[in-house]
Amino acid sequence: MIQSFLLIGQSNMAGRGFIHDVPPIINERIQMLRNGRWQMMTEPIHYDRPVAGISLAGSFADAWCRKNQEDMIGFIPCAEGGSTLDEWAPDQTLFQHAIMEAKFAMQTSKLTGILWHQGESDSMNGNYKVYYNKLLSIMDAFRKELNAPDIPLIIGGLGDFLGKDGFGKGCTEYTFINQQLQKFALEQDNCFFVTAAGLTSNPDGIHMDAISQRKFGFRYFEAFSNKQHVMEPLTNEDELLNLISSRTYSKAEMIYMKIMDLSLGKISYEEFQLQLVQINKE
Amino acid sequence: MIQSFLLIGQSNMAGRGFIHDVPPIINERIQMLRNGRWQMMTEPIHYDRPVAGISLAGSFADAWCRKNQEDMIGFIPCAEGGSTLDEWAPDQTLFQHAIMEAKFAMQTSKLTGILWHQGESDSMNGNYKVYYNKLLSIMDAFRKELNAPDIPLIIGGLGDFLGKDGFGKGCTEYTFINQQLQKFALEQDNCFFVTAAGLTSNPDGIHMDAISQRKFGFRYFEAFSNKQHVMEPLTNEDELLNLISSRTYSKAEMIYMKIMDLSLGKISYEEFQLQLVQINKE
Repeated sequence: MIQSFLLIGQSNMAGRGFIHDVPPIINERIQMLRNGRWQMMTEPIHYDRPVAGISLAGSFADAWCRKNQEDMIGFIPCAEGGSTLDEWAPDQTLFQHAIMEAKFAMQTSKLTGILWHQGESDSMNGNYKVYYNKLLSIMDAFRKELNAPDIPLIIGGLGDFLGKDGFGKGCTEYTFINQQLQKFALEQDNCFFVTAAGLTSNPDGIHMDAISQRKFGFRYFEAFSNKQHVMEPLTNEDELLNLISSRTYSKAEMIYMKIMDLSLGKISYEEFQLQLVQINKE
Repeated sequence: MIQSFLLIGQSNMAGRGFIHDVPPIINERIQMLRNGRWQMMTEPIHYDRPVAGISLAGSFADAWCRKNQEDMIGFIPCAEGGSTLDEWAPDQTLFQHAIMEAKFAMQTSKLTGILWHQGESDSMNGNYKVYYNKLLSIMDAFRKELNAPDIPLIIGGLGDFLGKDGFGKGCTEYTFINQQLQKFALEQDNCFFVTAAGLTSNPDGIHMDAISQRKFGFRYFEAFSNKQHVMEPLTNEDELLNLISSRTYSKAEMIYMKIMDLSLGKISYEEFQLQLVQINKE
């Protein structure tokens, strides 16, 4: 059975880390939802924007797979770049579309967690004053609609690179949003906070870079796995990053990558056939 | 109002043309559905596979925009690589997911046409013998569920590169499928056939290359626009291709492309700001 996770929030949940900045995660036990069905994950998992890239989900799954040697993990990608908290209200399209995607996923998986990251678009105009109650009504509605009253909810903080440069400059009240997110996780049942301390951004000043997304994913998994808040960076983040690079691919994964190379025109059909023979020999 | 088109079928509807083989189509009057909402189109429109690329929809929209100077066009991408006709039966996930996506789209657009391309996965084992009746029940169900009994349905033929090399080699009965598709379009109301004659494939022997997808899109639009079958390549396909390259971008489109460059790390925030000043001066 696939254990599935609903991914909701704005761009740093969707992921904007540059694809070529980190080694790929190719693992046949990690799946993503497409057209209501499961397929092997390739990053980007989201497709909310043409610039979608590395998100925290990839390394979350990588860590999950090391802890769970048997099952599969699957992602339901529903985050939307730039979305405000109000756009996630239960009567809005993003909420309703996410519910619908989750219901397709739940026909063939067990919904196991909700990962949320949002707040940049609300880090201004005093929006933090009403953030808590709005978030509460949204999360109550998700749990109710998905018939999952106790499902773990992991929510991450906003990066300290905000409020300074580029597109992040306008997020002047991000520390107040962080206070609300933390308070929410501390007070609500089955809800865990994950710090973004130490994480860094792309040149645009608002999107977490690829390495930071990998680290953030490890932290999200730590919170999910231990059912406790992660208030400091993990001490073994570099070690966990090395484990990604050093993993040995299965035959199915190697063939998957060769088919991708062929389909993208990187190798000819003759080269593809030769490489397939080689893989099957090993 | 957006005039929307539902895109269904298998990989050559989703599009596998290599992105860098053709000039991009960036046009603020062309939209695509993401998370149940509209945004400006960037190719690939589909996200059914990590290898999605240029499809026929881009040039269909380009031609549509020249004919319709006022409205916007929007795509609902629901094709799924490798899918068989049976996987599109009304009780299957692909059908039900496409209906759901279309219903989100119809909240904010007028559903104006259905574009279908499928058959490679049924070009074997005598599947052509039952193709017509199965396709009929699927299309009847789409029109009924979408409450659009007379909506134009455009169906394209399979490429003559099939049955020869690579992944297309097994499609030995593609000419029989083509006969069924053509017969279907000739006999059914508001249904028009589009030939794939002269179109060519990627090195994988099954996916139409980018230029062919552009030409195919022009043919699909000709069929839709004139409400008649397109049984021969258009005589002005090269001219239409030139019109794409020679189009002048609007300010909004130029800014869109610069934001994409910044978000993908191709330019720094300082370069982005300078280029924005330049665009706004023009």
